[in-house]
Amino acid sequence: MNKSNLIRLIHKKKSFLCVGLDPDLSKIPPFILEMEDPIFEFNKRIIDATQDLCVAYKPNIAFYECLGAKGWESLKKTVDYISDDAFLIADAKRGDIGNTSLKYADTFFNTYDFDAITVAPYMGEDSVTPFLSTENKWVIILGLTSNKGSSSFQQLTLSNERKVFEEVLIRSSNWGNTNNLMYVIGATNEQEFRSIRKIIPDHFLLVPGIGAQGGDLTQVIKNGMNKDVGLLVNSSRGIIYASSDVSFQERAYEEAKKIQIQMAEFL
Amino acid sequence: MNKSNLIRLIHKKKSFLCVGLDPDLSKIPPFILEMEDPIFEFNKRIIDATQDLCVAYKPNIAFYECLGAKGWESLKKTVDYISDDAFLIADAKRGDIGNTSLKYADTFFNTYDFDAITVAPYMGEDSVTPFLSTENKWVIILGLTSNKGSSSFQQLTLSNERKVFEEVLIRSSNWGNTNNLMYVIGATNEQEFRSIRKIIPDHFLLVPGIGAQGGDLTQVIKNGMNKDVGLLVNSSRGIIYASSDVSFQERAYEEAKKIQIQMAEFL
Repeated sequence: MNKSNLIRLIHKKKSFLCVGLDPDLSKIPPFILEMEDPIFEFNKRIIDATQDLCVAYKPNIAFYECLGAKGWESLKKTVDYISDDAFLIADAKRGDIGNTSLKYADTFFNTYDFDAITVAPYMGEDSVTPFLSTENKWVIILGLTSNKGSSSFQQLTLSNERKVFEEVLIRSSNWGNTNNLMYVIGATNEQEFRSIRKIIPDHFLLVPGIGAQGGDLTQVIKNGMNKDVGLLVNSSRGIIYASSDVSFQERAYEEAKKIQIQMAEFL
Repeated sequence: MNKSNLIRLIHKKKSFLCVGLDPDLSKIPPFILEMEDPIFEFNKRIIDATQDLCVAYKPNIAFYECLGAKGWESLKKTVDYISDDAFLIADAKRGDIGNTSLKYADTFFNTYDFDAITVAPYMGEDSVTPFLSTENKWVIILGLTSNKGSSSFQQLTLSNERKVFEEVLIRSSNWGNTNNLMYVIGATNEQEFRSIRKIIPDHFLLVPGIGAQGGDLTQVIKNGMNKDVGLLVNSSRGIIYASSDVSFQERAYEEAKKIQIQMAEFL
């Protein structure tokens, strides 16, 4: 999906919500566990409940990979089930030397038809650029993440007085452009959004950390939105595990709806 | 596998060679491609040819993942085929928020019985520590990688005059200990090995970059070896693709033997 289609979708659905598909067998309602492919059956119901309220889905690959080959089959079925009317993000946080990053790009852009993949920047330019060569496919580079550990290295100050994550934004924004590069910026860093927008005013940001992790949606919107909207705000656990009984689909709808209504006010 | 068993294995085999299992359908000999599971059949023959000459195997997960569920089955068969007489590394370069890193740890330490997994440090402490809670399992943190892109961020200087990768070594070495933490240090940075050994004198280092990437084995040994040997030196393409015809097994043996002989001189 290209940028103008993504923006069009946001205005059509009056939403820039991304629903994180992190299916965990220990949290899925018991009646689903009895089915042949509980991971897919759970995802299917969450997708049915939320597809009018969100513009993107983000399967977290760890939750599929931990089930071995079977988990990858559930992922494939999930990807195939999601309509073209959603932007599809592989939350994989990959990144390796060139020939290996090419393999990862092949996996997520071809074997599975994702629109975007999250990539860790530590290995630098030649670990990221192999993901940038496929038309209408996106790389989402980790900038400033939502977890406590973002202080370990991302927030350290360099000799040029920039923080490490700021240098990541500055350098990597030259490797691609606003049509194939986005950044992960955690909602738990809402005070940083204004300074981040000075560095990358035009890029889309994928924002995890509202809901279970405590970020404030309104602050994110006020400080992070740009002329193209420029935000995909993710919620995973707050929606998909809003209930663990037979009402989970309804409750997922309600939680997604609450967020969508808040978003619509700004669109 | 714990550290004393790893050291014992190194002295028994007179080798600290790690063979990278990066099976690529475009490079595997044609007669293997006709078999039912060419990835496993290729690996099996490489393992048969090299198991007396190396102490570790390192499947690069990208090369399996790109084949979907089938690739993960080939990986499982490969892991099960490798004897207990080898240290088994998942070259996965994962790293995510805590609950997700736990899933990745579960994947590689339980679903697949790897001894170690490579992890990217960008997301910091709480993205790494979930991998450190399983007995006799190891985390191998990316320190200074062998690719050109290591200059993008790893080699930048911080306001405390340390380089970013040095800060990664210093901080992360407190998250675990020499019995559950190793570091990736590329052989292409041989001039850095002495200063790295001042920061982490006692940790094992996983050293990629000899062979196809141009690192010098003797320099690595002279500057990187410690009292426990402390090195696992990886070669992938130089061994497994030494030949692409029916002689590939023999040629893989010969290339591994050349390296093992060099290593034995220092043991």
